[in-house]
Amino acid sequence: MIQNSKFKIQNFQGSKIEIKSRRRLTKRNLPILYTPGVAELSREIAKNKKKVFELTWKKNSVAIVSDGSAILGLGNLGPEAALPVMEGKSVLFKELANVDAVPIILATQDTEKIIETVKNIAPGFGGINLEDISAPRCFEIEKRLVNELDIPVFHDDQHGTAIAVLAGLVNALKVVKKNIRNVRIVISGAGAAGTAVTKLLSKYGARKIVVFDSKGSLCCNCLRKTNGPKKEIACVTGNEKFFTSVGEALEGADVFIGVSTGRLLTAGDIRRMNKGAIVFAMSNPVPEISYKEGKKGGAAVMATGRSDFPNQINNALVFPGLFRGALDARTNIISEKIKIGIALAIASLVKNPKSDKIVPDVLDRRVARVVAKVFK
Amino acid sequence: MIQNSKFKIQNFQGSKIEIKSRRRLTKRNLPILYTPGVAELSREIAKNKKKVFELTWKKNSVAIVSDGSAILGLGNLGPEAALPVMEGKSVLFKELANVDAVPIILATQDTEKIIETVKNIAPGFGGINLEDISAPRCFEIEKRLVNELDIPVFHDDQHGTAIAVLAGLVNALKVVKKNIRNVRIVISGAGAAGTAVTKLLSKYGARKIVVFDSKGSLCCNCLRKTNGPKKEIACVTGNEKFFTSVGEALEGADVFIGVSTGRLLTAGDIRRMNKGAIVFAMSNPVPEISYKEGKKGGAAVMATGRSDFPNQINNALVFPGLFRGALDARTNIISEKIKIGIALAIASLVKNPKSDKIVPDVLDRRVARVVAKVFK
Repeated sequence: MIQNSKFKIQNFQGSKIEIKSRRRLTKRNLPILYTPGVAELSREIAKNKKKVFELTWKKNSVAIVSDGSAILGLGNLGPEAALPVMEGKSVLFKELANVDAVPIILATQDTEKIIETVKNIAPGFGGINLEDISAPRCFEIEKRLVNELDIPVFHDDQHGTAIAVLAGLVNALKVVKKNIRNVRIVISGAGAAGTAVTKLLSKYGARKIVVFDSKGSLCCNCLRKTNGPKKEIACVTGNEKFFTSVGEALEGADVFIGVSTGRLLTAGDIRRMNKGAIVFAMSNPVPEISYKEGKKGGAAVMATGRSDFPNQINNALVFPGLFRGALDARTNIISEKIKIGIALAIASLVKNPKSDKIVPDVLDRRVARVVAKVFK
Repeated sequence: MIQNSKFKIQNFQGSKIEIKSRRRLTKRNLPILYTPGVAELSREIAKNKKKVFELTWKKNSVAIVSDGSAILGLGNLGPEAALPVMEGKSVLFKELANVDAVPIILATQDTEKIIETVKNIAPGFGGINLEDISAPRCFEIEKRLVNELDIPVFHDDQHGTAIAVLAGLVNALKVVKKNIRNVRIVISGAGAAGTAVTKLLSKYGARKIVVFDSKGSLCCNCLRKTNGPKKEIACVTGNEKFFTSVGEALEGADVFIGVSTGRLLTAGDIRRMNKGAIVFAMSNPVPEISYKEGKKGGAAVMATGRSDFPNQINNALVFPGLFRGALDARTNIISEKIKIGIALAIASLVKNPKSDKIVPDVLDRRVARVVAKVFK
C-alpha cells in the first residue's frame, strides 16, 4: 500500500489547496473588493470590534497549527514535513464542512513560544486546530490557549481521536453485545491521543482500562510518587497491575485501541483476547496490526485509521463538523458533554452496526451536519 | 463616493476569500489528499527539507502580515480593522498573479514580538508581505526579517508605493516633457511610504526633493543632531531650507506626491506650482486633494490611489507580480535595481502616456506578467 503510493508522488506535486476570491475581480467590483470599499469595513470594525466576524472571513476560518513534533505515527520530522498533512486536513475542512482552514507550521517547538505565536496570530481566525504536537507539551499548550483565547481551541490528535474512537466503540459494542462498563480495554499509546481516549472512555463509563507507553503499562501505584498526565490516566482507570507487554495484557481483554506505532501486534496476540474482540489499530499510516492480520487473529470488529479498509476510525469524522458547529454557535467551549454528544451523533448515523460497518464513511456528508448540530 | 459605499456594506457582508481544494474529494482521491498519502510527502520532506517547495503550497503562498497600526490613511485602528484590507489584497494577489495570500493579523504591535511571530510562522509560506505597519517600527521589522529569513520579505506600504509612484512619474514626466534630474519634488508624508518614495526617486536620479512630516519640512541641517530615517531622507535630498507648510513649498515645484492624509490641499495650492504640474494625491481612501480639485488647480497630470478616477497609482500594480516573480525565481533578494526595473516595466506598458493615462489599469493582466519577468 505504502509502496504503491511511491509512484503517486510524481503525480501529485504541489499544493492541495489554494485561496480563491469569492467574487470575480472586475472593474465594477474593484472598489468594493479593494480600495476605497475596504476602508468602510475597516472603519466599521474599528467602531465595533465584534463586527470582524460578519465583515471578514473570521467567522469561517480556522488556523491548523503544528510544530511537526508528532506527525501522524512518524514522529518528530519538523514543521516542513507537517505541511502536507495540514493541507490534507484543510481539504477535508472545506469539502466536508465549508470551513476555511489555513495551515500554519511553526519554526519553534518551545511551549511558551508556541503559545505566544498562536495568541499573536489569533485575531484573524475564528478557531485554532492544534495538530501533530507531541505530548506532554500539547497538554499545556492547549490548556493555556483555551484559557487565554476567546475562540475555540481544539487539539485534534487528542480529542478528535478520542471522539472518533468513542463513536466507533459505541457501535462495535452493539455488534458484539457487550457493555462499556464491563469490558476490559487495552490502550497502546500514552501520548496525546492515548491520554484523551482514556479520559473520554472513562467519562463515558469504561471502568477497566490498561494504558501502555513505550516502557510498559501505566499503573497507578507504580506512579504514586510522580505527577502529570501519565499518573492521571493510570489512576483514572484504577489499574494496579503492571504488564510489560501489550500481548500479555491482551489476555482476556475485550477491546484493543492502538494509538501508538505501526506493526506492534500479530494475529497471535489478538487470539489471546476474549471472544468478540474489538481491535482499533489506528496508528497512521501503518496500523499496530493490519486489517487482514487482525481479522486472521479472530477480531470480531476490526478498524484502522486508513481510508483503504473498512471501518476507518479517523478524526476526519470529527474536526470538520466540530469546528463548523463551534464557529456557527460562536462558542469557545468544547466540553466533555459536547464531545460525548458528538461521538453519539456520529454513531447514530449507522442504523444497524455490523462487523465491517461501525462508523459512517469519512466522505458521508451527513456526518459534519449532525456533528455541528450538537452545538445548537 | 465614500458616502455612497455606506449602503454597500449591507450587500457585502462576509469574507472576500476562501480556501479551496485543488482536487475534488472523492473516495479515490481521499488516500492521496489525506492519509495514508500525505505520509509519503511528509517522509520525502523530512529527508530533504527543500522539497517542501514542490510538494506543498509553499512555492505559491504569501502571508500578508499586519498589526493594524497604519491602516490605509486611517491610522492605528487595531488588527481586526486591518483584516478587510488584507482580504482585498489577497483577492488581487490571486486574481492578478495566482498567488495564494493569507491574511495574518497580529495581536501585538511590539517590534520584537512581531519579528518573532513572523519568523515562527514563516516555514509554511514562500514569502512575507508586511502591510499597514506604522513607521518607524516598519523599518526595523522589515530589515531584521529580510536578514533573518530565507524567503522574500517586502513591506508593501514602503516599496510597493515607491515603485508605483516611480512608474507613474516616469510617464508623467514624458507627458510634461521634463527630466527627473531637474524637477523640484514636494512629498507630503515621511512615514513608510514617504521614506521609500524619497529613497527610490533619489536613486533614480531626482535631486531636488522636499519631504514633509506633520510638523513641517524635513531639513538636513535642522536634523543634524538626530539620527534615524527622517534625517536620512532629509539629507539624501540635500534640502537645507525649512518650510512650515506644503503650500509654501509648492511655490515653483514641479511634482507633488501625497502619501499622508486626506484633504490637505486646495486648487489654490496647486496653482502655485510650475506649469506642467504633476500631482499624485495618493492617501487612501481620501486623497490629499480630489481628482477634480487638482485638475481645477491646473495640474497637467493628476493621479490618486483610487480605482474610481483616471490614473490609479496603486501598489496593486506592483505586489502581485513582484511576489509572482520572486516566488518563481525562488529568490529572497528584492534590490533597488529590481525595484527600478519593475517601475520601468510597468511604465512601458503605456505606449503613449497622456494626461489621463500614465499607468496601466490595475486590472490589466499584462502588468503582473511584465513585473514578474524582471526577476528572470
